[in-house]
Amino acid sequence: MRDSFHSELESLREQLSAMCAQAVEALRSAGRAVLEADHELAERVVAADREIDLARDRCDETAQRLLALQAPVASDLRLVITAVHCADKIERMGDLAAHIADTARLAHPACVVPAELTGAVTELGTVAAGMADRLVELLREPRSGGYAQLNETDQTVDAIHAELMNRITDTSWAYGIPSATSLALLVRFYERFADQAVSVAKRLDFACTGIMAA
Amino acid sequence: MRDSFHSELESLREQLSAMCAQAVEALRSAGRAVLEADHELAERVVAADREIDLARDRCDETAQRLLALQAPVASDLRLVITAVHCADKIERMGDLAAHIADTARLAHPACVVPAELTGAVTELGTVAAGMADRLVELLREPRSGGYAQLNETDQTVDAIHAELMNRITDTSWAYGIPSATSLALLVRFYERFADQAVSVAKRLDFACTGIMAA
Repeated sequence: MRDSFHSELESLREQLSAMCAQAVEALRSAGRAVLEADHELAERVVAADREIDLARDRCDETAQRLLALQAPVASDLRLVITAVHCADKIERMGDLAAHIADTARLAHPACVVPAELTGAVTELGTVAAGMADRLVELLREPRSGGYAQLNETDQTVDAIHAELMNRITDTSWAYGIPSATSLALLVRFYERFADQAVSVAKRLDFACTGIMAA
Repeated sequence: MRDSFHSELESLREQLSAMCAQAVEALRSAGRAVLEADHELAERVVAADREIDLARDRCDETAQRLLALQAPVASDLRLVITAVHCADKIERMGDLAAHIADTARLAHPACVVPAELTGAVTELGTVAAGMADRLVELLREPRSGGYAQLNETDQTVDAIHAELMNRITDTSWAYGIPSATSLALLVRFYERFADQAVSVAKRLDFACTGIMAA
């Protein structure tokens, strides 16, 4: 019974990790679509979000099967509930990647990002995607300390976000208001994506610590 | 055992309903803080969000206790998992209300909303809060059809959101870029709040229908 539980839990972890990998891929593609004003790629990212939603539903089904058949308690139960929460948050990361792609789609044929901000937006995307890459690993092989690490990296995301917002709302802004509002939303989507990654890492740490303390 | 399960489930529903009522109250206060540039009220809403986070943690604990002690299966299990998802989404509604209040806080002493848009923003807040009021009832006494109803009202929210975004990004906009970006974020927070309410109603409907079909 315990072996079967742990092998099913392992499978749930793999599902979550694969789902997170889909969300990172969506984020990277969305970033390219935004920076290169690639309408077709943007549409593909928006359409592919459905896959991530379905992956979340499958995680839910696995978790429910586990609960129904194994009736876990204590730290094992907490792990399953953690997985349910994490699946929700990763699905939300997928949504945010799709929102980023949508920004490119709506602005087409214009490019959302003026040339002078390409560097900062690229960096924002790179740091956020790197956080989610780390999460893919943490989901596969949980270890404590992931939260502290992602939380620290999130400060870089917040700093780039703040810098970009300062540029966008500066009186010298020369690209008009529709561009300013699209960009403000775009950088917020990145910031929220990173926040969700931190939030998943926090849940994982808690589940991990719980196990170790048990 | 079954009676005890249903009485605990009842208590979980009450907790969720009360938590949703806190989120609506936060939304209404945040709206007032934004429209009246009330810095003190905005700070209270931001601070009170912690209460909603704690309410979510308590819902989680109740759900885990239910799962551990009662080991529900089939539709009963689905109801508990539904509650876990709903608690997450309602907590997010609280976050969004706090983000709205934060918009007022950051703009202070200026008012985020120009006088000519007061009517539309007030309406946006009223409709979104009304949706969450309905959710408070649905959480207490689930019945099918709530999703269709909230989904329809959400179209009003989307229409006001679109109208406001058109005004904000119109060439005649006379209030500068920081105001435009703050407002674009503000109306998006309302729109997201309403989306979360729809999403909770959808989960409730599914759980309801599942029970009726079982």
